[in-house]
Amino acid sequence: MKIIRSIQDMQSYTMRLQMQGQSIGFVPTMGALHEGHRSLVRRARDENDIVVVSIFVNPLQFGPKEDYKRYPRRFAQDEALLVKDHVDVLFAPGADAIYPQGYTTVVDVPALTRTLCGPFRRGHFQGVATVVAKLFEIVQPTRAYFGEKDYQQIRVIARMIDDLAMPVRLVACSTVREKDGLACSSRNRYLSRKEREEAIKLYQALYLGRELIDQKIMLNPQKLVRRLMDVLKTIPHGRVDYLSVVDPVTLEPMKRIHRPALLAGAIWIGKTRLIDNVIIP
Amino acid sequence: MKIIRSIQDMQSYTMRLQMQGQSIGFVPTMGALHEGHRSLVRRARDENDIVVVSIFVNPLQFGPKEDYKRYPRRFAQDEALLVKDHVDVLFAPGADAIYPQGYTTVVDVPALTRTLCGPFRRGHFQGVATVVAKLFEIVQPTRAYFGEKDYQQIRVIARMIDDLAMPVRLVACSTVREKDGLACSSRNRYLSRKEREEAIKLYQALYLGRELIDQKIMLNPQKLVRRLMDVLKTIPHGRVDYLSVVDPVTLEPMKRIHRPALLAGAIWIGKTRLIDNVIIP
Repeated sequence: MKIIRSIQDMQSYTMRLQMQGQSIGFVPTMGALHEGHRSLVRRARDENDIVVVSIFVNPLQFGPKEDYKRYPRRFAQDEALLVKDHVDVLFAPGADAIYPQGYTTVVDVPALTRTLCGPFRRGHFQGVATVVAKLFEIVQPTRAYFGEKDYQQIRVIARMIDDLAMPVRLVACSTVREKDGLACSSRNRYLSRKEREEAIKLYQALYLGRELIDQKIMLNPQKLVRRLMDVLKTIPHGRVDYLSVVDPVTLEPMKRIHRPALLAGAIWIGKTRLIDNVIIP
Repeated sequence: MKIIRSIQDMQSYTMRLQMQGQSIGFVPTMGALHEGHRSLVRRARDENDIVVVSIFVNPLQFGPKEDYKRYPRRFAQDEALLVKDHVDVLFAPGADAIYPQGYTTVVDVPALTRTLCGPFRRGHFQGVATVVAKLFEIVQPTRAYFGEKDYQQIRVIARMIDDLAMPVRLVACSTVREKDGLACSSRNRYLSRKEREEAIKLYQALYLGRELIDQKIMLNPQKLVRRLMDVLKTIPHGRVDYLSVVDPVTLEPMKRIHRPALLAGAIWIGKTRLIDNVIIP
């Protein structure tokens, strides 16, 4: 596996591949890789000639009070994992390379950031759209792989790709879960054993919600959310940012639940913020 | 000359060229072509295998009270001119193709839009950056050609290209002027014969300013601007948006004039807004 740190080296590498007509599968990550990332890498490996994974903890997508500094960084372990999964290139630029002195350009997808995580993480999706747009310019991927745990992120990027006619295909991959159902996340590392036990309640609430919708027991979103909040309320030191039923394309809240629907939530357990969602097709 | 109207057709055309290793010179325009555009086309012709010119009157870069509706549209004449200048492809998408229902993504370069035309044309440069970013995704040019009359636009696009690591080289071309010095502009067509005679005073003021700086007669920007305003004040039905001496890279106003400097102005003559600038190297 080749490790590339400079934008120019990455760009000349991918341009050479393009001239040769080789397809590039790209998995952008912030490192601290888990089984969710590995499922993206394996899918990219199956579908492309060359697999590029980036590791870049993007300061632009963290708010001033968020966990940029303590976000887990474990480059050596990540590198070993990617070698094992037959990745061709690990692109790992520094923050100075991506955002040099005088950097100012932003990409924004306003219509999709007014609901769900948007109001709780001001500027987050602008940071995501900006760095992904830049990574696409550098890596020039044929296909880019993202996990559905970050559902709103996928919608924002899909919208950006469509709106700007970017020549890349977005591949959305199912959320990978631990045995008990907790969605894999780099932030799960923050949880104490006690908190880890409680964390499963987010998925339990979403799972219950899907059942209640599936069996048409509860199609009023207010009532449904109230019912599910009963589950989340039992988490000690827990706090709910939101729990919403929205249209899976526009992400607008539903007045009455119809299919397809997305049931999504974000909770705090102590100092850790977790998100998860289920799609009701 | 091939005329392409759909994004998909344009994109597959340019991807084929890229695979063949052919260089693409791109001249994005809003049509109503004049000698300034033609100089860009000729330069692109000299430096590339294939020349693509786009004609798209971009609604996103016009304010609600600006001249989007009356902006000159003369497709047949433009087409004839481009054939004469040996252009390979004219890309002329409709507004619905570039901004379909639900379109929301914007590209912004905030640090460079706080001075000069920025405060007078809120949202203008966001509209420019957004459409140019999209056109670059569609045309995938090796080099893109812009005229220095729109100096701030060039800086905004250069900054966007650098910031997002877009694999395109920006080529800035000197302003082309009429015999009396008036900068070529599609908006010159708006001027009555009387107004056309007065319009030259903008360049006269800038020319005088360059002389005064060149000969170190006036290096205080306030004094210089006051002196030049005397020239512009004599225009009947004239109004000055701004006349400024700024750093040519950051576009920040200078406290004391040093080289290199950009002397730039925007004036209204009746209902027509004209801009021009001179660079003091």
